[in-house]
Amino acid sequence: MASSTSVIPNSVIPTTVNPDLQKERDAASFSSEEFAAWWAGGEEVLKFNRGVREYMEKDVDYSEMLQLQNKTHEEIIEFSTRGAIDGAKKLRRLQEERNPSGDVYWPNMYDNQVMWGLVPGGNPFGVMYVMLVKALQAQCTPEQYEDFGKRVERFEICGTYAQTELGHGTYLRGLETRADFDRKTDEFVLNTPKISSYKWWPGGSPTTAWLWLSCTSTNKCKGPHMFFIQVRDEDTHEPLPGVHIGDIGKKMGFIGVNNGFLGLKDVRIPRTRMLMRHAQVKADGSYVSSPTNVLTYFAMVRTRCVVARGNAIMLAAAATIATRYSAVRRQSPINPNEREPQIMDHVTQQMKLFPEIATSVAYRKASDYLWNLYDVTIKDIENGKYERLPELHSLSCALKVTCSMDSAAGVEKLRLACGGHGYLTSSNMSSIYVSATAACTYEGENTVLLLQIGRFLMKTWRAALTGAPLPPTVSYLAEVQKNPEFGKWTGSWENMVKAMQYAAANRTQLAFKSLSNRLTRGETEANAANHTGIEFTQAAELHGRAFVFSAFTEAVTGPKSKTRSANFNRVLENLLELYLVKETLNQMGHLLRFINLTDTDLSRLQDRLETVLTKLRPDAVAIVDGFDFSDLQLNSTLGSYDGNAYERIFDAALKNPMNQKSVPKSFHEILRPFMKSNI
Amino acid sequence: MASSTSVIPNSVIPTTVNPDLQKERDAASFSSEEFAAWWAGGEEVLKFNRGVREYMEKDVDYSEMLQLQNKTHEEIIEFSTRGAIDGAKKLRRLQEERNPSGDVYWPNMYDNQVMWGLVPGGNPFGVMYVMLVKALQAQCTPEQYEDFGKRVERFEICGTYAQTELGHGTYLRGLETRADFDRKTDEFVLNTPKISSYKWWPGGSPTTAWLWLSCTSTNKCKGPHMFFIQVRDEDTHEPLPGVHIGDIGKKMGFIGVNNGFLGLKDVRIPRTRMLMRHAQVKADGSYVSSPTNVLTYFAMVRTRCVVARGNAIMLAAAATIATRYSAVRRQSPINPNEREPQIMDHVTQQMKLFPEIATSVAYRKASDYLWNLYDVTIKDIENGKYERLPELHSLSCALKVTCSMDSAAGVEKLRLACGGHGYLTSSNMSSIYVSATAACTYEGENTVLLLQIGRFLMKTWRAALTGAPLPPTVSYLAEVQKNPEFGKWTGSWENMVKAMQYAAANRTQLAFKSLSNRLTRGETEANAANHTGIEFTQAAELHGRAFVFSAFTEAVTGPKSKTRSANFNRVLENLLELYLVKETLNQMGHLLRFINLTDTDLSRLQDRLETVLTKLRPDAVAIVDGFDFSDLQLNSTLGSYDGNAYERIFDAALKNPMNQKSVPKSFHEILRPFMKSNI
Repeated sequence: MASSTSVIPNSVIPTTVNPDLQKERDAASFSSEEFAAWWAGGEEVLKFNRGVREYMEKDVDYSEMLQLQNKTHEEIIEFSTRGAIDGAKKLRRLQEERNPSGDVYWPNMYDNQVMWGLVPGGNPFGVMYVMLVKALQAQCTPEQYEDFGKRVERFEICGTYAQTELGHGTYLRGLETRADFDRKTDEFVLNTPKISSYKWWPGGSPTTAWLWLSCTSTNKCKGPHMFFIQVRDEDTHEPLPGVHIGDIGKKMGFIGVNNGFLGLKDVRIPRTRMLMRHAQVKADGSYVSSPTNVLTYFAMVRTRCVVARGNAIMLAAAATIATRYSAVRRQSPINPNEREPQIMDHVTQQMKLFPEIATSVAYRKASDYLWNLYDVTIKDIENGKYERLPELHSLSCALKVTCSMDSAAGVEKLRLACGGHGYLTSSNMSSIYVSATAACTYEGENTVLLLQIGRFLMKTWRAALTGAPLPPTVSYLAEVQKNPEFGKWTGSWENMVKAMQYAAANRTQLAFKSLSNRLTRGETEANAANHTGIEFTQAAELHGRAFVFSAFTEAVTGPKSKTRSANFNRVLENLLELYLVKETLNQMGHLLRFINLTDTDLSRLQDRLETVLTKLRPDAVAIVDGFDFSDLQLNSTLGSYDGNAYERIFDAALKNPMNQKSVPKSFHEILRPFMKSNI
Repeated sequence: MASSTSVIPNSVIPTTVNPDLQKERDAASFSSEEFAAWWAGGEEVLKFNRGVREYMEKDVDYSEMLQLQNKTHEEIIEFSTRGAIDGAKKLRRLQEERNPSGDVYWPNMYDNQVMWGLVPGGNPFGVMYVMLVKALQAQCTPEQYEDFGKRVERFEICGTYAQTELGHGTYLRGLETRADFDRKTDEFVLNTPKISSYKWWPGGSPTTAWLWLSCTSTNKCKGPHMFFIQVRDEDTHEPLPGVHIGDIGKKMGFIGVNNGFLGLKDVRIPRTRMLMRHAQVKADGSYVSSPTNVLTYFAMVRTRCVVARGNAIMLAAAATIATRYSAVRRQSPINPNEREPQIMDHVTQQMKLFPEIATSVAYRKASDYLWNLYDVTIKDIENGKYERLPELHSLSCALKVTCSMDSAAGVEKLRLACGGHGYLTSSNMSSIYVSATAACTYEGENTVLLLQIGRFLMKTWRAALTGAPLPPTVSYLAEVQKNPEFGKWTGSWENMVKAMQYAAANRTQLAFKSLSNRLTRGETEANAANHTGIEFTQAAELHGRAFVFSAFTEAVTGPKSKTRSANFNRVLENLLELYLVKETLNQMGHLLRFINLTDTDLSRLQDRLETVLTKLRPDAVAIVDGFDFSDLQLNSTLGSYDGNAYERIFDAALKNPMNQKSVPKSFHEILRPFMKSNI
């Protein structure tokens, strides 16, 4: 390091907790342990999770994790591969020791929060377990699964899910990669005919197998299907003939995950490598189509629940970092000649932090609600009842969209709340942001999903007009049609839920009218839908918000509240109050259009906002403690449990490779010659 | 690269323009060259800028620039140092050849857009010329400037501006670094007593000099002053005794700029190294305070104009990339069985692109307006008139805040509009985003500035109540007090400006009432201001928006419109219409609180929004062409002038270092042993 003298001792990080942070913990009105147990899903779960996490994080070098961003693209991926394999080994060992016949640990926890600390740049094998194994289980015949599915599950070979192409993501039917059936040899011949047909984005490190999705042909195209193909030699890892495979380069996030490309030229695979549990191609070339696509549909619902919950947790992580930092940083006296306060005492800082804490809890609870609905619906389906599927699908889209959008914006707001130091990669705030914002694009691009929801709302509105019965989570559309008093403002929580539903219903009605007008003017259904697109997205977004309002209110005020302590309930009620009030104010442009709020109502909302911020102030640190992240999971110099932010920023900087020599190479090579040259 | 066969030829990038993009250019309703000249500030300026740019970018390797993000932190800084020095050499050469006695090229253009292409990670010496040289010019006595200021200007030594500390940014009076005067030796003794006192964030590569700002003491602290100190040996670059200097580590943006830290232990400098043009410390230890701080104040105004303009240009760059990409990507047929359209034909995509194009033009014009006001005011000041300074200061804060906030959000929206490929670093969208969002924090953190503006608005509102005359850009506050019809809605452009002013005035009034109530209840002025903080920020933001509304409307409809062609005026009018309508809709929650808009008015606004998007559709590409960025400045695989996006994405991926060998090292070291081991 460039230093002749240092006022800083070798180990700069105190072993004590920052007194400002300790003071917050001592003064909280409730037990953060009760919060943690509630958040985890019960005391047992919390204890279990903590035990696994402790085992996983043992001997991991925290300071090395903070240096990740200083490495090259290649080094980062190597580092992540090592972390991911270490994690797999540990989970397998746990499985062996504690539950040899089950799958509690491995691979169940492999794409779970317990891995965060080991792979801060993302798990390169995450897609393999989140998507590939599940897809193989759903799409393989039993023989196929025995043949190669199990090998992937056991990590003897590894692969990825190759769907997106350079030229097509959203529009699956546009995929250009071809699988042409050759009857003579009983093989498929695979080709990516153009640059735009290259598979692009598959995440992970496929050694011998890729699963991919393409257009199979028995004379004419039959739409996308899945095939299992080997792309590299198992021993040497060299690409097989006809396979062009590589890395797509650095991305703004998921820097530890090696997303790849794949081109194919006349690659032949046996016919039996088409996944044939549903659709099939027979040896004579005849095509048997899939009886139903309900399960694929259903898998998407589940993935969107996972995305929403994951993003709620990312927002909670960012809130933890920013809140702890706001307790230990002191800046700008409020009254002259007073000591500089903790920045969390500035009301504008509270307005940056606390609404995001409330938002993360709201989305976590809404995704739990949806998950329960999912479990109920899956039982219905087993009994042949498919009625709630469109509603569930639409709701999962809405939650995915609003949660990814709000959590990304929230993380960025929290990063900005950390001032300049939030811009340091060692704060980890930028890394959480890029993970959160990615969810706006993957698993259904948000605008595309909003348009789908919009079309569902149009159908539902039309059904309601005819008096047809509606599924529960959209029944408010019919109620609004019948009852003009539905949205009348009183300001109670229950009423605020109704007000948001009322706004969603009225936006739906406006969109429906615009669409009808366009159809009346002779536009095609498709053109009319395109032209009404903006209104569709507005209605859809409000529908999603109304759902979160309702689910969060239910979670806080519902019967389960009786199982919680009074002090803890008071905290949850404060979070609910803040969430409802701030989001109502955020959506005021929509609400005021349809609901009459007086000037007094509006002033009262502003008062409620300021009052609840004050109420939450003493509990803020204890709440984020209740999110129960380990320091390694947060991977942040600003957010550690001990609150020694400045020392940790400093320590991370000192360990930065730039500081391991006193004069950078570039001085002698570039700078000095120039400064002396006068050119 | 991992390839046994490739369907891709060695050079994948066609030399022709993508036909979809060419079609857009051919069909535009106006000349993008007229736009470019207008945007640049006249044909002469455009021609000059292009000439310099061509000279600067000659022989620069475009494909190497796209690989920047794959390097280590250290390599990136080395790369940027090289680019910055190359740029300096070229500008000096131009100066020598074309204008030996002036400073048109060097250093005038050194922190200008013409450097973008050479230093995509930021110019490490930017701060030196934007801030240090200017500060030295403003703060040095003539002797001091002769002694060391000129050496910095000539790049014989280089330095930075070291103000922010680890523990203090915003609150200057809280700075902890000390300069204690020692009468016996006529020296200052400099110390950073704690970790939190370390200078942190100064950008650049100081070889021999830092300028820094601290607390000087002649027995007691006299507040922050500037000193010029040497931190490294001129020849060896080794840190001098008592100096602890290093790099603060990777940041989310400005990755090519080596921001540093600086600790000092009993470092002694001659008394004459305090910059003494204004405040002075005499040899006997007596202190002469500065007669006025008007100039410092004024420098901040100028810097904020620079920030606003810079961010408007970043938004324009992102809009160029996203718009060109949206013209060449085709996805999802609107009508079944039709060809997939350019994604720009989807109305929801238009809604992502065009409002951001309009916003960048609006902010560019508002910053031009402010710059003119600045020039006028500087003449006033030379004549001893200081009246408009608080107004100008407040306006520059408001513009900096709203522009940084909106441009950052806009860039991110545009990045998301590019789907998955916008997530690739080779798209450059993430890099533009992190540059844009940084401006929310530097040069006055946005919330802190909004609170300052809020206080100014309170004072002004109070003055208006007493009937005191108000400066022009806030005179609407008095007019609203007098005329209740002020905000009555008609929907004309002029009326929309007034409506935004009306909302700002009413928000100001509400904040004023809240503040007054708190004072009446006995809160201190400071506590009352803190508690009214949220309302201050709301009023301040609307004040800023009202200014942009007014300035942009003036720029489009004012007398200068006569110098432009009818076709071009029509395009500008469309941009104005879009900007006013979408921003009015965005702020509807505030507007509806104070202004009565009927349901018909609101539907009409939605119609206007959709209509103007349609009008802008054929001209979108020509407009962004008119922003006149070179491919090197955009540094984006998605946004090049030729529109060969897929080929460029592919080419950049192939050149990624990961693809230079067929099997990654990690396979044999990590993956294979694990897969074979069954552990």
